Amino acid sequence: MDGFNLELSDHPESLEQLLVDCTDTLKYGVKTGHPRFFNQLSSGLDVVGLAGEWLTATANTNMFTYEIAPVFTVMETILLKKMYEIIGWGETEADGIFAPGGSISNLYGILVAHYKHYPEIKRQGMTALPCIVLFVSEQGHYSVKKAAAILGIGTDNVIEVKCDERGRMIPAELEKNILEAKRKGQTPFCVVATAGSTVFGAFDPLHAIADICETHRLWMHVDAAWGGGLLLSRNYSSKLSGIERANSVTWNPHKLMGVPLQCSAILIREKGLLEACNQMRAGYLFQPDKLYNVDFDTGDKTIQCGRHVDVFKLWLMWKAKGTCGFEAQIDRYMELAKYFYKVLKKKDNFKLVFDAEPEFTNVCFWYFPPRLKHIPKGCERDQELQKIAPKIKAQMIEEGTAMISYQPCGDKVNFFRMVFSNPATRRADVDYLIDEIERLGKDL
Amino acid sequence: MDGFNLELSDHPESLEQLLVDCTDTLKYGVKTGHPRFFNQLSSGLDVVGLAGEWLTATANTNMFTYEIAPVFTVMETILLKKMYEIIGWGETEADGIFAPGGSISNLYGILVAHYKHYPEIKRQGMTALPCIVLFVSEQGHYSVKKAAAILGIGTDNVIEVKCDERGRMIPAELEKNILEAKRKGQTPFCVVATAGSTVFGAFDPLHAIADICETHRLWMHVDAAWGGGLLLSRNYSSKLSGIERANSVTWNPHKLMGVPLQCSAILIREKGLLEACNQMRAGYLFQPDKLYNVDFDTGDKTIQCGRHVDVFKLWLMWKAKGTCGFEAQIDRYMELAKYFYKVLKKKDNFKLVFDAEPEFTNVCFWYFPPRLKHIPKGCERDQELQKIAPKIKAQMIEEGTAMISYQPCGDKVNFFRMVFSNPATRRADVDYLIDEIERLGKDL
Repeated sequence: MDGFNLELSDHPESLEQLLVDCTDTLKYGVKTGHPRFFNQLSSGLDVVGLAGEWLTATANTNMFTYEIAPVFTVMETILLKKMYEIIGWGETEADGIFAPGGSISNLYGILVAHYKHYPEIKRQGMTALPCIVLFVSEQGHYSVKKAAAILGIGTDNVIEVKCDERGRMIPAELEKNILEAKRKGQTPFCVVATAGSTVFGAFDPLHAIADICETHRLWMHVDAAWGGGLLLSRNYSSKLSGIERANSVTWNPHKLMGVPLQCSAILIREKGLLEACNQMRAGYLFQPDKLYNVDFDTGDKTIQCGRHVDVFKLWLMWKAKGTCGFEAQIDRYMELAKYFYKVLKKKDNFKLVFDAEPEFTNVCFWYFPPRLKHIPKGCERDQELQKIAPKIKAQMIEEGTAMISYQPCGDKVNFFRMVFSNPATRRADVDYLIDEIERLGKDL
Repeated sequence: MDGFNLELSDHPESLEQLLVDCTDTLKYGVKTGHPRFFNQLSSGLDVVGLAGEWLTATANTNMFTYEIAPVFTVMETILLKKMYEIIGWGETEADGIFAPGGSISNLYGILVAHYKHYPEIKRQGMTALPCIVLFVSEQGHYSVKKAAAILGIGTDNVIEVKCDERGRMIPAELEKNILEAKRKGQTPFCVVATAGSTVFGAFDPLHAIADICETHRLWMHVDAAWGGGLLLSRNYSSKLSGIERANSVTWNPHKLMGVPLQCSAILIREKGLLEACNQMRAGYLFQPDKLYNVDFDTGDKTIQCGRHVDVFKLWLMWKAKGTCGFEAQIDRYMELAKYFYKVLKKKDNFKLVFDAEPEFTNVCFWYFPPRLKHIPKGCERDQELQKIAPKIKAQMIEEGTAMISYQPCGDKVNFFRMVFSNPATRRADVDYLIDEIERLGKDL
């Protein structure tokens, strides 16, 4: 960032300098809308969503009261209702709120779960409680542990359930873990199932998990931050079959649906719980003697006070595309993932982490430089393979040609995770990425 | 909102319809940038800040890693450093993060406070702890209780300290409450002082509170969400004298400094605590073998995973105004508050809640319609007075002429809270508001 002075001064800069600063900020930034930006689950740049965000910024208001956000509050209600219906809660009066990201949405799910079981927690705190534990698969998102730390449950009381070879929670293992916890005198209260895991894109078997939750009277939260968008596709929504039995669901439209950051919803099947759990009735904000029905004020359902308007961009995109538009886009990502899988399968210098059609748009794989192909499988080869993905990625970043994530997982050394959620991506970009990995990796 | 169809459909709408929808969204919204919008602590619309938000939306990236937000991450570091220096932590290496709003920032302060005292909480949860309690003034923000509920401390364990007649915490009462709690076997760990209370704009005596915190070894958090901006004014910063002794500070640039929503910082004097408290080391996001020094990745300091870029608009405004520009703006709000106070003082149908020069830009007052002036002070008059502010406000909203907040507080029935944080406001707007209240209220 040569010549880009980021330091702040006592005195104003000229307008010309500000424009140079803006240009530099974009120039040295990462092009997350680029068709070959595959680095995160959120990518691409939808122009209607962008227009929505610009209007939101111009309106510069706050979601805490209907009084100052009447239109956005109604839009939020309509969007949440649409999402409940899609989940399959059409008959009941459900509840929810848009939150600053999936981690906070997951925290809401667990917060409401323990409030439902132990309402005294709000006033008396956790010391009033037995040792409560919750369950999530070993492939579940780290925000579950983070939430447990924040909520005073503790990360030791998050029990990781084993997964099958594709990264899906094994129901028999869950059952076993629950019984074991009970034997130890712990009190299970919640299971977090994952619909679209971050690395492998795996879907936990929701019906089997729901059965277990019913038997043991546990709250079922589904983290569908990544996978939720798939509910909009008639071809693929069955992968989330059973989600309608959940007590709460996290769903991030800023991921698969391509809404600009941030846009995440927590949906809760039982109406009223969210408010009961979080309500503080601040007299200066939630006056009961307002001009309008104060049930429209959503602020006291939240763990925030002021809340950014995250709904308008999603609402406008939904108007612009219709549900069918989202479906077409998502189906195309699934096609691209299958295409990518098929191409890699034919190449002997690439190895898929799972040798089976992708479950979702995630495709995990290793690249083997020719040098490594002759080393037999084992510790020595793994040590070398571990270094390949970081080196290739570093070179890609230096050259600015593409961006893709990698990570180790369990006994698997660093592998690439390809993922599709960018409407700008075409097959040619997929081919380019493969060629680029070969070009940068062949002499490593 | 006649004719404005907010429902979502399966099929796309035309571009023409989307433009109509956008127009309607703005038309039926509340003009928070209007010079007579006095309803919240956040108001006005700074065009440079707006440009900053538009660029942020265009960049559409995520603060969790330096990898995909290199420029914004550096800007955040520079802004935080600037804010520590202004607080008076210049000599030490401090820490902090931008959070989605002041409530979450306050939650961070308390979260880190109890982690500092009891690091075992992260793994073992609250059940491992004695009954811990914290203190906040009865005029402190409700987010402190909210945080206590979320963190598993419980709202019963938030002890409200009495205030003096101007709404400032009484240090002797704090001391008394601490000793009382200890006698009951409770364990005090934290005091939340307020610098700029929401309703009265009161500043707790920070030095006296810091002395008490030192004596009892308690974490001192200062909620300067509203008052923090005053640190930029050489004329008024002494109102926050003692803030440099705090362990953590909440400061919302989206309030007094006029940055578009949202922009809130939590600042923590001891470096490393924030990360130790929240870190989960997710392998898929915080790879140790990255191209760059991974100390630049801030994501694992937060309670979020994805995090919206809230810093660029503040950075750009600071470049555009310089510290002096913020100072001039804030000094003008203070002058307007004094002007408003003087005008009201002369009018016998208005009564100030405090008959003294305003401490901050908040000015609280009642309007007495002629009918009420003849009822003697007491229960009957209060019953009638309670209805006046809501009626006047309702009429103002119907006519769209101005917007101002009201609330009851303790034994004080509904009173208006005037507040200045809008750069568009002039003396003429203040005069207008007074006339408008008289016009709408005189026959009530």
